[in-house]
Amino acid sequence: MVQVAILGFGTVGSGVAEVLTQNRAVLAEKAGEEIRLKYILDTREFPGSPFEAQLTHNFEDILNDPEVKVVAECIGGATIALEFVKKLLAAGKHVATSNKEMVATHGHELLELAKAHNVNFFFEASVGGGIPLLRPLACDLAGNQITEVTGILNGTTNYILSEMLDKGAAFDTALQEAQAMGYAERNPAADVEGLDACRKVCILSALAFGFHVYPDLCPTQGIAAITGDDVAAAASAGMKVKLLGRTLKTAEGKVCAFVAPHFVPASSQLYHVDGVFNGVVIRGNAIGEAMFYGPGAGKLPTASAVVGDMVDAVWHLSQRRRLDWADAQPDQMADPWELPLPYVVRTTASLAEVEAALGQAKALDGNGYLLAAPTTRRAIEQSGLALLAVRPVFQ
Amino acid sequence: MVQVAILGFGTVGSGVAEVLTQNRAVLAEKAGEEIRLKYILDTREFPGSPFEAQLTHNFEDILNDPEVKVVAECIGGATIALEFVKKLLAAGKHVATSNKEMVATHGHELLELAKAHNVNFFFEASVGGGIPLLRPLACDLAGNQITEVTGILNGTTNYILSEMLDKGAAFDTALQEAQAMGYAERNPAADVEGLDACRKVCILSALAFGFHVYPDLCPTQGIAAITGDDVAAAASAGMKVKLLGRTLKTAEGKVCAFVAPHFVPASSQLYHVDGVFNGVVIRGNAIGEAMFYGPGAGKLPTASAVVGDMVDAVWHLSQRRRLDWADAQPDQMADPWELPLPYVVRTTASLAEVEAALGQAKALDGNGYLLAAPTTRRAIEQSGLALLAVRPVFQ
Repeated sequence: MVQVAILGFGTVGSGVAEVLTQNRAVLAEKAGEEIRLKYILDTREFPGSPFEAQLTHNFEDILNDPEVKVVAECIGGATIALEFVKKLLAAGKHVATSNKEMVATHGHELLELAKAHNVNFFFEASVGGGIPLLRPLACDLAGNQITEVTGILNGTTNYILSEMLDKGAAFDTALQEAQAMGYAERNPAADVEGLDACRKVCILSALAFGFHVYPDLCPTQGIAAITGDDVAAAASAGMKVKLLGRTLKTAEGKVCAFVAPHFVPASSQLYHVDGVFNGVVIRGNAIGEAMFYGPGAGKLPTASAVVGDMVDAVWHLSQRRRLDWADAQPDQMADPWELPLPYVVRTTASLAEVEAALGQAKALDGNGYLLAAPTTRRAIEQSGLALLAVRPVFQ
Repeated sequence: MVQVAILGFGTVGSGVAEVLTQNRAVLAEKAGEEIRLKYILDTREFPGSPFEAQLTHNFEDILNDPEVKVVAECIGGATIALEFVKKLLAAGKHVATSNKEMVATHGHELLELAKAHNVNFFFEASVGGGIPLLRPLACDLAGNQITEVTGILNGTTNYILSEMLDKGAAFDTALQEAQAMGYAERNPAADVEGLDACRKVCILSALAFGFHVYPDLCPTQGIAAITGDDVAAAASAGMKVKLLGRTLKTAEGKVCAFVAPHFVPASSQLYHVDGVFNGVVIRGNAIGEAMFYGPGAGKLPTASAVVGDMVDAVWHLSQRRRLDWADAQPDQMADPWELPLPYVVRTTASLAEVEAALGQAKALDGNGYLLAAPTTRRAIEQSGLALLAVRPVFQ
């Protein structure tokens, strides 16, 4: 039997408690021994909760209990959660977390700490909710030189963009509906401005290319400026507007990580990822291309990923699983504005003017022009055209 | 440094050699030590091959070399490959294989043998080519009670069905084109009759539900009887014909594994899996639904999966990874003919006759009728209608 604890009894933490309890039998079979939930840490009281007996307000109960081997961190943020996780790793306890902010900003440091204390630090739930990505990238695809990881990484913004296309809704209306459905927060800035996707790209980039990318090294553009004209221009070319987080190797061997709204053609599997779902494309020199699709958020899907990590930790209690990456290498990063990509330019200029400035193009609806040849964003911004929008096309 | 060997220098074996060589640096980084290819076993000579120095005709060279820790079995079939793999496991060597026939017919036995000798027996490449499935099912989704695994598991038949839809080609014409493109074998029976998909369902079922399903416990129907009328009936309902391999838990808690052509609606991610690609949907009580997409065959994608397994074996040289399942449990299997499913029935009977026999239905093109309520295949076959085709609908 292995005893475990949960930090934080919010949405994800209560999902982890529920999965550990409801699926106890199958977990014992998969893990090879019973996984018993001993503590749940929270500052609040939960009278009448079936987990009342496990509740504690004292972190030291968990930290100092030698029976607790694996801890799920579901507090969120990078202040108190970070302090607790550092103490747990240093005390020789294995940690699984859903906390993308903490991993994106302190992943390298925490992996080093885990290594120094011969324990596991896992974070599958931090990217793509329940979708398996961490182990596929670290292990299944280990035989590949990864060339690109690109995904629809934020369900809220994907829901808003799907509503704008399907119902012709304006951005503000679609956002209000997402809030009414409980998909978007009261303060939706982290989703809408792309910060949530940015953190996930940082983690995927580190897994794919072996060194940390801090959020400020990942230029990020959200979807607040997306209009019905963008959606119409994409549709007239058989494409959809999607907020993509991307990290890729450039022709010069540098890593380019960024978040921006893209036009995605129907030939891509990402075109078919709608509503609150996430999808991630991984490209490598042996696999070619694979795509992973599933719920990017939600109580039980996220808990599914946390519990999968806990099982892997149980399997590797004494011999930790190899998982680490180097610290940031800013000189190995490329500027996405200098990356040649296919682009749609929206401008009040005529086709002739666009072609004079940027070469052959095809006119779309909504003042859009699909450039025939890959171009850099810098060249487009410096073209002198009166720009309404500049959208890369995913290929 | 870890020394490894490859059995069989055919398509997959030469792909593994290529990946091990070309991606040596990234592999050393991921595995934590250099992986060096010491032997390739084949009966043939390969004069001028860059791997000539590694070639041996003598299996004993590999079996008796204590330096060789991990072996990739790429011979195929369940005769000589089976004999070699048993000897290797018994000698304490870790084995990774792409051999679906061997795993589907002897997986339980080989996993037991691996366990007894404290080594790993991995077979990611046996299902879905390069698509990660084995570890997601065994580990990432370990917190789930899996309810269903359904996939497009054979690229050749999916290519044929895509051609029939896109170009209005007859089955024979599409098959000939698949052969000309090198996707289908001269003798395409294993693909066309569904045997290849059947073997893969057996493996997925064992991973999902914990006991072996031998191919004769998985009723299998191929695509040779699919006509243009089937394709038209599906299209008129916004669906596509896809050969699906499925294993699922019935309402009674039994496991039902089968292979059959299905009508797949556009709302399913599998609808968008076209050509030679594979896609696998996994459903569980925490994750909801996830889908994995990628190349289901091919030299380098398959090699990618074999090499991923070899890296995992290197990580677990002394402490094997937990992976096993029980032997067959025929009394726990349900007959797919008794499984209530949505169905399309193709018959020369009128709508009134169909509704009199099977309840409310909707007329489609190609003499097709979409039944409103889930029905068993047995009930349809016993309805007395003159049946042209009976196709379950994937939901």
